[in-house]
Amino acid sequence: MPNTNSDSVISLDRHTLQRAYAAGRLSPTELIDDIYRRIATQGDDKVWLHLVPHAEARRRAEVVEQHYAHRPKPALYGLPYGLKDNIHVAGLPTSAGCTALRTVASETATVVKKLDAAGAILIGKQNLDQFATGLVGIRNPSGYCRNAFNPDYIPGGSSSGSAVAVAKGLVSFSIGSDTGGSGRVPAALNNIVGFKATPGLISNHGFLCNNRTFDVPPVFALTVPDATAVLEVIAGHDRRDPFMSLCRPLPLPTALREGSFRFAVPQDKQLEFFGDAVAGKHYAQSLATLRTLGGTPVEIDFTPFLEASDTIFNSPFIAERAITYRSITEDHPEAVHPAVLAAIQAAGQFSAEDAFRSLYRLTELRHNVHATLADIDVLALPTAGTIYRCAAVEADPIRLNANMGYYTYFANPLHLSAVSVPAGIRADGLPFGLSLVAGPWRENVLEHLGQRFHRAIDGRLGATPTRLADSR
Amino acid sequence: MPNTNSDSVISLDRHTLQRAYAAGRLSPTELIDDIYRRIATQGDDKVWLHLVPHAEARRRAEVVEQHYAHRPKPALYGLPYGLKDNIHVAGLPTSAGCTALRTVASETATVVKKLDAAGAILIGKQNLDQFATGLVGIRNPSGYCRNAFNPDYIPGGSSSGSAVAVAKGLVSFSIGSDTGGSGRVPAALNNIVGFKATPGLISNHGFLCNNRTFDVPPVFALTVPDATAVLEVIAGHDRRDPFMSLCRPLPLPTALREGSFRFAVPQDKQLEFFGDAVAGKHYAQSLATLRTLGGTPVEIDFTPFLEASDTIFNSPFIAERAITYRSITEDHPEAVHPAVLAAIQAAGQFSAEDAFRSLYRLTELRHNVHATLADIDVLALPTAGTIYRCAAVEADPIRLNANMGYYTYFANPLHLSAVSVPAGIRADGLPFGLSLVAGPWRENVLEHLGQRFHRAIDGRLGATPTRLADSR
Repeated sequence: MPNTNSDSVISLDRHTLQRAYAAGRLSPTELIDDIYRRIATQGDDKVWLHLVPHAEARRRAEVVEQHYAHRPKPALYGLPYGLKDNIHVAGLPTSAGCTALRTVASETATVVKKLDAAGAILIGKQNLDQFATGLVGIRNPSGYCRNAFNPDYIPGGSSSGSAVAVAKGLVSFSIGSDTGGSGRVPAALNNIVGFKATPGLISNHGFLCNNRTFDVPPVFALTVPDATAVLEVIAGHDRRDPFMSLCRPLPLPTALREGSFRFAVPQDKQLEFFGDAVAGKHYAQSLATLRTLGGTPVEIDFTPFLEASDTIFNSPFIAERAITYRSITEDHPEAVHPAVLAAIQAAGQFSAEDAFRSLYRLTELRHNVHATLADIDVLALPTAGTIYRCAAVEADPIRLNANMGYYTYFANPLHLSAVSVPAGIRADGLPFGLSLVAGPWRENVLEHLGQRFHRAIDGRLGATPTRLADSR
Repeated sequence: MPNTNSDSVISLDRHTLQRAYAAGRLSPTELIDDIYRRIATQGDDKVWLHLVPHAEARRRAEVVEQHYAHRPKPALYGLPYGLKDNIHVAGLPTSAGCTALRTVASETATVVKKLDAAGAILIGKQNLDQFATGLVGIRNPSGYCRNAFNPDYIPGGSSSGSAVAVAKGLVSFSIGSDTGGSGRVPAALNNIVGFKATPGLISNHGFLCNNRTFDVPPVFALTVPDATAVLEVIAGHDRRDPFMSLCRPLPLPTALREGSFRFAVPQDKQLEFFGDAVAGKHYAQSLATLRTLGGTPVEIDFTPFLEASDTIFNSPFIAERAITYRSITEDHPEAVHPAVLAAIQAAGQFSAEDAFRSLYRLTELRHNVHATLADIDVLALPTAGTIYRCAAVEADPIRLNANMGYYTYFANPLHLSAVSVPAGIRADGLPFGLSLVAGPWRENVLEHLGQRFHRAIDGRLGATPTRLADSR
């Protein structure tokens, strides 16, 4: 039964909220009060690095309410949201998970301006792996949040707080950042949707970027339509980000409109579950679900994808991170997590020639992979091959972190689009996520197939009591 | 009076030749014989670094003739052409102006395959500034060709032989390479057209590139329609060049179709003629001609263009040259011109961080300049601010070479399109060229305005006796 009649547990998905608003059963101001009660109930869960004061968020809700009282409601009217703490909002602090770096921002990211103009209400800045450098979510020296399903387990990162806040029903959506999987891995580990568009579709202006040449602001949401509603608001040209592309999404392929599609999978020997047989079983089940939806599997060679994955931490592209964090790594190295410092300082070994050789090779790989994907609708992969306990990662941080990127690192260097969709809860009570990956400007394919897959799985929205079927 | 009745001086422009072919007054085989007579008459003019043997070119002409005897003639049927000697043709030597590097190529550049498929006939490989590094045309240690109008003067470079061969009526067109102006400066200095499309429109596969990220194969021809006919043949996607863009030319702006247009000029204080008042006067006359054609001048700030010009020789992008020529500069530095060696070895000082900072800045400049040019049809500039005697350049090679790039260096780093069009002969008997520069994918604007400007100037085709008006 839908929970829309109970203020204390109303689902924050867009459809449920906007229906409640339209029916007069709920106002944005009332929802904001409810949100702050929920946040207070959580206690010190380390999801937030900065919370907008309740009174301030309430005032913002009143302004939105009054402004649209007699006007058509905008796309994200009255939806509470959060921002990963490497995204600037003028007047709020940005720390990127590093206390020594924490300063009050003087500018507001373009995506935030667009969200505000669409009626969304900012709740706060969310925890992350320091400098958005890990995929585990526990690399902030000042403390980390836990998996929404089991606090012994990692939340996934680097957009840890952004995913957990959505999964716990504290915001309708969050904006993170995605370099090597930070917008997908924590979505999978918390049973929500993480949608990462093609690099160049969404402005990075006002973000602390790891790779200005291919970073993407991802959307975390409870459902695929929620994620795409936010994507539609934040996408589009921004003169303040010179790396934006002038290309635009392509039309939905005809076969897909008619219900059939082709999905690529790596060769069996190229799959990696790091000893986690349960994850392997869930991946096989996910592929079976795709078949029932009309999909035909096509085996491809995963080698060029894996080679492109090296771009993230084993290439001269590391120099882009060094540029962003130069002053803090030089002036306050003691404030930087040792694994993060080591990753960034590796940039010093590379010459300009190395950088161009790496750019050449990546351009070739991109060209080849786009050709491979041209007659395939999606590549279907586990978002993560396994999930670790926090204690295990603390004991072996670098190797286990790298394992988490096996299926995600390559997507941005290769200019691909990707969405992680909930794929069911494992026998051990932990979530499993399936990644659908497509060529550039194929966001509509991911929306279409992602939504169909999520409906076939059904299940709870994040860690909330609401089921997907009840949110429609 | 047209010269089409005299074999010995028939103009090699496409219109004249194809009319003669169609009327049966001339065959490709007869033309090839004529061409080799013309070349023999020139003596050791250093235009050619490798000439296809007469018998072989003749056989090729026979094949073309027979193949199309009863078929529709392709776009470049029976047109003799040359290639700058940094473009590979399987079985022919490539030297890039460096004897120690000279080897027989095992692959054929994509543009050459396309030209051959369109019925053109290769005559030979043409002289150049070593490694296509200079704009003067006299930096090949094994000898250089002279300006087609006055042998005391530089031919311009780096595609020196390619331009001089067209100007002297030895080929219908040549393909050069253009990094910082090599496809435009020698065109201007020899009274012909040099058309350089937007980077990414034409494949660089099979070229020795200076900057794979923005080099462009330019076309040298006697007229603008000839150049665009060749461009149409060689443009288009090539899976062997991963740097090709998927973008395509934009439609002709409405105002331009109706006859009026806006042309940008730098501020007066930003113009540089290096003491050459005659060039300054010719530039002013060229702008007056544009006004008579319906153009309205708009003054713009030339500063961001000049900053982008530093990409060519004062930036980490030099590392791209170092990658191409690594083995020869390391193993045979004595075979490399000292100025060329110094330019390439400067790459060693740059780190990967320098490379990305430079890429960031260039991306910003590109973004800003594209916005500036968005509501302007063309930027109208001298192709070169002056012309030097060979002896002057030999005495002061680096500074005078850099002067030649003042109006051309920025175009490829900024992803612009450009054409150099003959703009009349100076009182001292030397040619002056006007560059029309436009935003990316604006080749049709350059074709349209370039042709109208050339007709308004009229004059001789290159250094041949034929006038433009007689070639139509």
